[in-house]
Amino acid sequence: MARAVCLLSGGLDSAVCLAVARGEGLECHALSFDYGQRHRVELDAARRVAEQLGAKAHLIAPLDLRLFGGSALTADIAVPRARTSEQMAEGIPVTYVPARNTVFLSLALAWAEVLLAENVFIGVNAIDYSGYPDCRPEFIMAFEQMANLATKAGVEGATTLRIRTPLIKRSKAEIIRLGHELGVDFSLTHSCYDPDPRGLACGECDSCLLRRRGFAEAGLPDPTVYQP
Amino acid sequence: MARAVCLLSGGLDSAVCLAVARGEGLECHALSFDYGQRHRVELDAARRVAEQLGAKAHLIAPLDLRLFGGSALTADIAVPRARTSEQMAEGIPVTYVPARNTVFLSLALAWAEVLLAENVFIGVNAIDYSGYPDCRPEFIMAFEQMANLATKAGVEGATTLRIRTPLIKRSKAEIIRLGHELGVDFSLTHSCYDPDPRGLACGECDSCLLRRRGFAEAGLPDPTVYQP
Repeated sequence: MARAVCLLSGGLDSAVCLAVARGEGLECHALSFDYGQRHRVELDAARRVAEQLGAKAHLIAPLDLRLFGGSALTADIAVPRARTSEQMAEGIPVTYVPARNTVFLSLALAWAEVLLAENVFIGVNAIDYSGYPDCRPEFIMAFEQMANLATKAGVEGATTLRIRTPLIKRSKAEIIRLGHELGVDFSLTHSCYDPDPRGLACGECDSCLLRRRGFAEAGLPDPTVYQP
Repeated sequence: MARAVCLLSGGLDSAVCLAVARGEGLECHALSFDYGQRHRVELDAARRVAEQLGAKAHLIAPLDLRLFGGSALTADIAVPRARTSEQMAEGIPVTYVPARNTVFLSLALAWAEVLLAENVFIGVNAIDYSGYPDCRPEFIMAFEQMANLATKAGVEGATTLRIRTPLIKRSKAEIIRLGHELGVDFSLTHSCYDPDPRGLACGECDSCLLRRRGFAEAGLPDPTVYQP
């Protein structure tokens, strides 16, 4: 059975991405990171999603990105609330974590090389997204090229690694519809950047706003419990 | 003052690499990894070298690459001894750590982005090396291209990041001579993959053999204390 390493944050997109990989009949090895994120509760969601979708393995790797700082997700910087679509379109927000997807993909590459996996799945999205540079197709293509020179396979001409981004050109509503068709239980997922101590979503950060709008546009009920 | 992030293992090459960066007048931020390597004693060497060469900062980041396994440096696989040059030239050895330089460079990229550093130095070498895929110039070029698409700078067209590899085309003897000219105290460095419990070098792994031969060819005394 062909293998995949699937980056799994516990959010909506990566859950649908894992469901796509499973739908292709791949043996999926899910990889999450305990990186000092303020929304660490997403890791509980990742565990539930990996189990629901039948991942063969699920690894939560410790990796302290607070060491470098520079982001509202890992340092003491406030997460913006209630931004309009226009504000979201205005450049890179403070929730951007420097080089995060590069770091996550590099560690996925390490595991893929050991597993002899031919696929790494990542749920990046360049439509309804937060304006992060490392979600763009040109970044993903460059990473794939680099990855195929970085590893044993690149030298010995064996396996070629593909970075798979099935969601990159879909709107949030399309992603939600796709996940619904593939049987993703969205009540298990967590999107909020800034949950309260109970783990309830704020409903107002970029991630919550994109999620809410996505369910509304998809015409499906949003199972998220938001803070009252 | 222009800034650099310098990957620093505690070995000979990365020490010379840091000395080159300091010789250019750069403010150097040294980065080491506590990644589960069996030769963890190299981190003590990294501390000494960072201090001797006047690094502005030195960060040792925890990162458990044993999670993935697959290498004699991080798993229970014996480190080969007393290999000939011909044996070393025969493909990728078991001491190769899957995607290690990709992972290290990705984390250096994260720090460089926060520091607004324009340079990342890495002491890779494609001449007297162990046959690792991620030491080759084509890998480094592909990483640099990817890095410039991965970050804020890539979107906002600000700083361009350069991956600097001043040692990539030098023999070990040339690297040692260069370090000697730049005032590197080689007695502070550690190269052995498989030191004894006291931290003494085995003298017979690929890394020790390349080091010993390098000093001999450079006509300089090797200050390393080898196991009797």
